[in-house]
Amino acid sequence: MTQRLLLDCDPGHDDAIAILLAAHAPGAQLEAITTVAGNQTVAMTARNALQVCALAGIHAISVAAGMDRPLVRELQVAERIHGASGLGDADLPEPQIALAPQHAVDLLIERLLAAKHGLTLVATGPLTNVATAIRREPRILPHIRRIVLMGGAIGLGNWTPAAEFNIAIDPEAAHIVFTCGQPITMVGLDVTHQALATANVRERIRALHTPVGDFVEGLLDYYAERYASIYGFPAPPVHDACAVAVALDPTLLHAEPMRVDIELRGEFTAGRTVCDRYGVTGRPPNAEVGLELDVPRFWDLLIGVLATY
Amino acid sequence: MTQRLLLDCDPGHDDAIAILLAAHAPGAQLEAITTVAGNQTVAMTARNALQVCALAGIHAISVAAGMDRPLVRELQVAERIHGASGLGDADLPEPQIALAPQHAVDLLIERLLAAKHGLTLVATGPLTNVATAIRREPRILPHIRRIVLMGGAIGLGNWTPAAEFNIAIDPEAAHIVFTCGQPITMVGLDVTHQALATANVRERIRALHTPVGDFVEGLLDYYAERYASIYGFPAPPVHDACAVAVALDPTLLHAEPMRVDIELRGEFTAGRTVCDRYGVTGRPPNAEVGLELDVPRFWDLLIGVLATY
Amino acid sequence: MTQRLLLDCDPGHDDAIAILLAAHAPGAQLEAITTVAGNQTVAMTARNALQVCALAGIHAISVAAGMDRPLVRELQVAERIHGASGLGDADLPEPQIALAPQHAVDLLIERLLAAKHGLTLVATGPLTNVATAIRREPRILPHIRRIVLMGGAIGLGNWTPAAEFNIAIDPEAAHIVFTCGQPITMVGLDVTHQALATANVRERIRALHTPVGDFVEGLLDYYAERYASIYGFPAPPVHDACAVAVALDPTLLHAEPMRVDIELRGEFTAGRTVCDRYGVTGRPPNAEVGLELDVPRFWDLLIGVLATY
Amino acid sequence: MTQRLLLDCDPGHDDAIAILLAAHAPGAQLEAITTVAGNQTVAMTARNALQVCALAGIHAISVAAGMDRPLVRELQVAERIHGASGLGDADLPEPQIALAPQHAVDLLIERLLAAKHGLTLVATGPLTNVATAIRREPRILPHIRRIVLMGGAIGLGNWTPAAEFNIAIDPEAAHIVFTCGQPITMVGLDVTHQALATANVRERIRALHTPVGDFVEGLLDYYAERYASIYGFPAPPVHDACAVAVALDPTLLHAEPMRVDIELRGEFTAGRTVCDRYGVTGRPPNAEVGLELDVPRFWDLLIGVLATY
Repeated sequence: MTQRLLLDCDPGHDDAIAILLAAHAPGAQLEAITTVAGNQTVAMTARNALQVCALAGIHAISVAAGMDRPLVRELQVAERIHGASGLGDADLPEPQIALAPQHAVDLLIERLLAAKHGLTLVATGPLTNVATAIRREPRILPHIRRIVLMGGAIGLGNWTPAAEFNIAIDPEAAHIVFTCGQPITMVGLDVTHQALATANVRERIRALHTPVGDFVEGLLDYYAERYASIYGFPAPPVHDACAVAVALDPTLLHAEPMRVDIELRGEFTAGRTVCDRYGVTGRPPNAEVGLELDVPRFWDLLIGVLATY
Repeated sequence: MTQRLLLDCDPGHDDAIAILLAAHAPGAQLEAITTVAGNQTVAMTARNALQVCALAGIHAISVAAGMDRPLVRELQVAERIHGASGLGDADLPEPQIALAPQHAVDLLIERLLAAKHGLTLVATGPLTNVATAIRREPRILPHIRRIVLMGGAIGLGNWTPAAEFNIAIDPEAAHIVFTCGQPITMVGLDVTHQALATANVRERIRALHTPVGDFVEGLLDYYAERYASIYGFPAPPVHDACAVAVALDPTLLHAEPMRVDIELRGEFTAGRTVCDRYGVTGRPPNAEVGLELDVPRFWDLLIGVLATY
Repeated sequence: MTQRLLLDCDPGHDDAIAILLAAHAPGAQLEAITTVAGNQTVAMTARNALQVCALAGIHAISVAAGMDRPLVRELQVAERIHGASGLGDADLPEPQIALAPQHAVDLLIERLLAAKHGLTLVATGPLTNVATAIRREPRILPHIRRIVLMGGAIGLGNWTPAAEFNIAIDPEAAHIVFTCGQPITMVGLDVTHQALATANVRERIRALHTPVGDFVEGLLDYYAERYASIYGFPAPPVHDACAVAVALDPTLLHAEPMRVDIELRGEFTAGRTVCDRYGVTGRPPNAEVGLELDVPRFWDLLIGVLATY
Repeated sequence: MTQRLLLDCDPGHDDAIAILLAAHAPGAQLEAITTVAGNQTVAMTARNALQVCALAGIHAISVAAGMDRPLVRELQVAERIHGASGLGDADLPEPQIALAPQHAVDLLIERLLAAKHGLTLVATGPLTNVATAIRREPRILPHIRRIVLMGGAIGLGNWTPAAEFNIAIDPEAAHIVFTCGQPITMVGLDVTHQALATANVRERIRALHTPVGDFVEGLLDYYAERYASIYGFPAPPVHDACAVAVALDPTLLHAEPMRVDIELRGEFTAGRTVCDRYGVTGRPPNAEVGLELDVPRFWDLLIGVLATY
């Protein structure tokens, strides 16, 4: 059976790659793209999604804009990572389709309620859209087969020492998602920092000699510089593409069930995904937390899909 | 110049080994042992320290009992790790010296103020004694050459998913210590989980064929079972001995300067040592945070000292 | 010009009286009633609203059900105050109109966006509906002329020692409302505890000799017993009716502008409305906080309106 | 039997009056004065205590300086209320006795342990000394007959909208004191704002025509201006003298037993004394919380004692 996906994202360099992977994913059907404020404002993340679709010739997938700020906290955007536009200095064509008329939250609710056998929801930005949909229409819950989310960390965060960006930006939304009761796969920094676009990987992408390949290589170039200068990384991690890949092929990930609590009150730890790996809390698991990515097969999948454009 | 040490501890299995290491440390002089509530009540940790001294023939070092509970929070003890006595089922001789008449806090203050060139303070329990001494008599600060403490974690905690036991038990004391302005070396779980008493290590200790060697092997036997059953570890980590070893020979540790903040308010993260490894907070470092232990040289040092008993 | 009102509530005894006051308010037009989980579940508060309308012959006002739980926290209901039904043991007719097909949040958004000159929003329950509408569709903000809300306290709370029920149940929603930037009048316990339905007041209501009068008197009877037994009050306060009255006639209230912050993190104070009456924070006011009610004129207004049924 | 008192304070205008009251209290014996950082640094509060004693001819009472900062938080002093010296522009004689050689905490411990029938401890500053003594030497607890403290509020705070100064400055110390298990009388702002030094009161003090009377009148003059300008008060409240008066004559206060919890974690409420007046928490009382002061008898007592100088 074809797997049907929704992608909620905030492009964002790695979100752009995630869109490309999800839209041509083998054995899967991307039903809609929704965007949220995160890496940039929702106006920019929506426009970026449309422009990526235009570049890649993706015309049949609805794109809707959603929440323009976190549920409770003030918006912070990741301009120092993703630049003023959210996609660095990428040179992209004008959008060729219009945004869907609905709000992203309404589109998520509508598509989920209509999906008799449920949908897989891949979330690669702050969880504001997903959480608002869950609270606004709890009847969607049984229609969510699984939420595969890029976010959080067992180890160090990146936006703060304790928290990864997507969760740090809207911890209350993350709390709503992690306590919703549906299956969750957390693809956190522990996983995505394994998916580094090394020189070898980038050579394979350049070798595609296609506009999409060149676009991705350009993204990686900008992103590599940012990750080297801010975090001292030898190569940039394509966080969000990991979540799509894991949704498409769960065997790419070694994950273990854990209790994950979202810290909402800490002075230094707000937005931390507190992962009970050793089971010391005695509380039941609420997520499959990714530990190890099958890196070679991940790149094979991603580059294979990029080659289809 | 001989290095002069104070050891503040809460024996506890690994504290017992730390005492043995500190008391016969090559090129160093252990000035006093102070104990605190932690792995067990302060009455038990004080008695355990005296009994370890009795077993090992340590008669010339003052042992003082200190704070009987954390500064602000309720006391929790680690009975499930260290047993009802704090030293499992170890069979130890009666104490041969009396406790020092002073309170541990007063002894720390007295010894520090008297030390013209300062003392190195090794702390292997909750930091209640050290923090109380600092607040009660801030003039001790310039007499503290360095605090080498076993506590905290960059990665996962052990008492809670977010916090290591020593810091989790008295986070406010840890906050006082980490903001005191003197040099601090943090020997956290990231380091101590490298110091596993493997079969090979234990064979070397058994081969000493001495009462102290047999005692240590007995401790490790009990401790190994606890760590296997609770954390699934293949061998038990001798946390506290690492801090003493690092105080004796700083070249055993690869550490990096970081900002470390203690989370005091979190719902799930109280007592977390929030380590800014990437420098994302822009705040100045306040501790050298251990990353890697020279494991072979650590065991050589420890077993070499045990052999002197 | 006729004042146009929206009433968001969670009937509840005093909400029922608030509905009666708002629906026949002199010089005002009640546009819709929306209900939220609070005093009871949203299913019950919606049904209670419909039943009160049936009893009072209110057929032309849309009633919509909204959020079934707080934004972030678990739902708590005030069964010990309002009974298992939310209206004690009141004997009410079956609803005569159906619930509006829209969700309360959508109805609020729709009515506000359509109101060229804006609407006054009276909120007498937890602020979950209002906050969700604000976040989901921020373009409603300029259409909100004023939010008059029953909630909070300068002094003691009632649900906890620090917090009044409506704010305690959904502090994050209250934070969203109090920081929304539109004019807010807070009618807190400091005000509503002045509006006690004394023997004299209840005699005047009984003297109406109408079904609505008898219904209100029955509510007050149940409510009086609850307030006497739980809080030791000599007579029950009709909290929510005060907010409607103040919306209708602002001269009933002496209020002062203050900074009001909602405590979200406290261990004992979550949901407290921290009112900076002395201006010690130096932060700008964001609400008019009620201090004194013109009690005789309040009762004249309320009983006068009840007499129109 | 003569009541024996310890006074722990941070003079401070109202502390100075408290010292004068305590030192000549009818039927009581002031055993020692200890000072703490609060209204000003501990160096200044100690010097101020000595100077007040010099002015008033108090030579037989030990004065010791104590903790120089709060247990956990950074020190804030109330310079805008009490001026750069802590006693406004009062012109005081040089100290005539030396500070006691002990630290205030040690003096408290020593005096309490020596008092077979216990002592009453009046605390009119941040509770850092008292809390440190309790934690450092818990055996003092049965020797504390009662702690009568000026601090906290059921209603509005003064240092922040939620918290009174003494508790706001060291909430963790207050938590230790309020959970110590010994009898506590809280004389908070709800009480002390009743003790306003009105024109009539000040006329009576001026009429003493003594150096001490003139000194007190000078303090009130400075204090009156500060309270008028910051809080809009018609006359200044002599907070700390209330606590001493209540210790001397408990019948001056109408108090009720309540559960009082100290908020340690709130963003806007740290240091709030959360008083469960209605018993909604179901937790047992831990303090007698003052509600009403017998104002005429309070002034009679205070002015009567001032007249003895």
